[in-house]
Amino acid sequence: MSTAETTWVEGAAGSGFDVDHLPYGVFTRHDDRPRIGVRIGDRVLDAAAAAPPARLAPYLEAPTLDLLMGAGRTTWTAVRAWLSGLLTDAAGADRVRPHLHPLDDVTLLLPFTVADYVDFYASLDHASNVGRIFRPDAEPLLPNWRHLPVAYHGRAGTVVVSGTDVRRPHGQLKGPADDAPSYGPSARLDIEAEVGFVVGVPTRLGDPVPTSAFAEHVFGVVLLNDWSARDVQAWEYVPLGPFLGKSFATSISAWVTPLAALDPVRVPLPEQDPPPLPYLKVEEPAGYDLALEVVVNGEVVTRPPYRTQYWGPAQMLAHLTVNGASLRTGDLFASGTVSGPEAGERGSFLELSWGGREPWTVGGEERTFLCDGDEVVLRATAGALSLGEVRGRISPPPVPDSSSSGHFHAP
Amino acid sequence: MSTAETTWVEGAAGSGFDVDHLPYGVFTRHDDRPRIGVRIGDRVLDAAAAAPPARLAPYLEAPTLDLLMGAGRTTWTAVRAWLSGLLTDAAGADRVRPHLHPLDDVTLLLPFTVADYVDFYASLDHASNVGRIFRPDAEPLLPNWRHLPVAYHGRAGTVVVSGTDVRRPHGQLKGPADDAPSYGPSARLDIEAEVGFVVGVPTRLGDPVPTSAFAEHVFGVVLLNDWSARDVQAWEYVPLGPFLGKSFATSISAWVTPLAALDPVRVPLPEQDPPPLPYLKVEEPAGYDLALEVVVNGEVVTRPPYRTQYWGPAQMLAHLTVNGASLRTGDLFASGTVSGPEAGERGSFLELSWGGREPWTVGGEERTFLCDGDEVVLRATAGALSLGEVRGRISPPPVPDSSSSGHFHAP
Repeated sequence: MSTAETTWVEGAAGSGFDVDHLPYGVFTRHDDRPRIGVRIGDRVLDAAAAAPPARLAPYLEAPTLDLLMGAGRTTWTAVRAWLSGLLTDAAGADRVRPHLHPLDDVTLLLPFTVADYVDFYASLDHASNVGRIFRPDAEPLLPNWRHLPVAYHGRAGTVVVSGTDVRRPHGQLKGPADDAPSYGPSARLDIEAEVGFVVGVPTRLGDPVPTSAFAEHVFGVVLLNDWSARDVQAWEYVPLGPFLGKSFATSISAWVTPLAALDPVRVPLPEQDPPPLPYLKVEEPAGYDLALEVVVNGEVVTRPPYRTQYWGPAQMLAHLTVNGASLRTGDLFASGTVSGPEAGERGSFLELSWGGREPWTVGGEERTFLCDGDEVVLRATAGALSLGEVRGRISPPPVPDSSSSGHFHAP
Repeated sequence: MSTAETTWVEGAAGSGFDVDHLPYGVFTRHDDRPRIGVRIGDRVLDAAAAAPPARLAPYLEAPTLDLLMGAGRTTWTAVRAWLSGLLTDAAGADRVRPHLHPLDDVTLLLPFTVADYVDFYASLDHASNVGRIFRPDAEPLLPNWRHLPVAYHGRAGTVVVSGTDVRRPHGQLKGPADDAPSYGPSARLDIEAEVGFVVGVPTRLGDPVPTSAFAEHVFGVVLLNDWSARDVQAWEYVPLGPFLGKSFATSISAWVTPLAALDPVRVPLPEQDPPPLPYLKVEEPAGYDLALEVVVNGEVVTRPPYRTQYWGPAQMLAHLTVNGASLRTGDLFASGTVSGPEAGERGSFLELSWGGREPWTVGGEERTFLCDGDEVVLRATAGALSLGEVRGRISPPPVPDSSSSGHFHAP
């Protein structure tokens, strides 16, 4: 597909959603039937309604992206070529136009079935910042960090689409000065600005995926907000890792950017020292130059750069499967918090407030962690492309009833 | 359902699979169509073929247990009552008998779609043993352990049914004396003998499940072997917990024992000191008296008792959802390694060999961890009931090709 082609769709040029992008989503309109949509400018193309070729139609008539994601790279390329032709061929515009709907007229749904969700910890600056905050007198990086992309499994069932409110979670909390834990709402509600990779083509149990096969398996990219209750996490996470501090919600963008659309922003990874073991070696360029923004209540508060991430996504996928763990269509693996080397490039409020000790300001108010009512939006650009945003507002926690029996009612 | 009723199925009385049990599974016979089966003695009843009442038929005609699991307790009770009547009414035996198949004639499949898999760490004796092995000079239990049931998310996509071979995983390994990690097959391949709880009825995001609602949500119980590569785990697990050391395979029994069938073996939990926070308080009896056995190459090597577990399953479920995390039909949460206070009651080879320092013997051979070809079977009884076994044999690791490119071929 040539990026020199221009679309006949008004307003798409320069919007970040031109024909060189064409991200996929799932939407409903007046009825409730979910349909696959392709974003062009500020419109959504109803893909199945636009008369795809017969061999591609089944993938586009499905109610989720699952079937298309599992179909593999040849099909992905064919669908993109068809879409590009459709949206650049001015002669056919009148036929296609009825199937373009304004974004404001549709409801966007979670676009695929999340199988397993794995969260990495791939930013050297993020891992170093966390180490300095929690262990100020020790080496910030743990011994394994430069040898393998550290990761854990998160909760797939609580991955939600952009726009879903996030209720402040309750949990066990114990400050360093407390004798015993107490039960209550998290007071240190945080975000993690991340990039998520969506697996399309599955593997059999026992078959590792080499770094060279990354683009055969990964369908596309989403932005991801890994909401985190830092006080819950701090008390629970030794020795088995984060659990309830993360599992209440993980938000992803409604639009999945095809991996091929990001080819123009591929960049070499930073130097890796020591050199990784052979199974983690990559053909460069294996990184992506994505520029993230975290917006709170309408104001940009930090700008994390993805291009400085230490471990690349092909390395994450090779590591994730080196033990023979199989992949399923819909597996989602995320970068972990994206933080750059500068203070204005930190991708979590834990880092931005340096452990809660240095408040930052938004709208003239001080913040360390999030207040009820705060709205957080993650955005990113990839050269001329804009990735789909991730939006979420904090709603108050549920109120326990007077019997303390564990029953709740909404506030 | 009265347990005094007797079945007309020959050989079922005293088999552990009498009419007071009736576990559910999914099987295929000569064609490949998966069917729901109910075990009675050494036979499998083809449930849909046995003419269930119209209002129950859709749940039993499905190719997995998912629909039945999601239907809720009233339906679960009605299906059990119908099955019990069918298998005790001698007058109808001739009509039902053609739908009973010998176990040897069927292939058992994974009986439900695993949604999220969570593994707890609920045995005081296991957690204490692990603490003593790894931190001999420190307090064996970490500060949070007696306050909350510690847990992490595992990989749902690699949960496999009993009988599936388990390939020895490769991974990064680094012994305490090594300067740098190396890549190779795990040399410390272990098991964890566990009890798994299968969620039927889902919840909405934001709604915690009180301990009192445990039996409304949990459909049944499986045995579970959480295969573990201890050398991979030891190098990777700080600070985000176990990942590749566990994610290559988790085996469950093909039979799901309905929760109601375990009512006769409910027992009080051990005393909890300090008393748990209100959301973790339970109505007793909240434990289950299950007697596990680990069989290696045909020989019983350890007998872990579930009744001594510190945290009960209703507490696990309440904790898992206290932050508002939603449940899906097919969520699986497991006890963690079941170990009792005695040396012959340890549920992992890590403990049985005390960190690899004290070999145990099987078939006249010494073992610390598992050898290729070893077959491990978990079994359990619950009073008069036998839970479905979990069987798995260790197959050799894949052989990397000479280019070390990360490609593998089977040995």
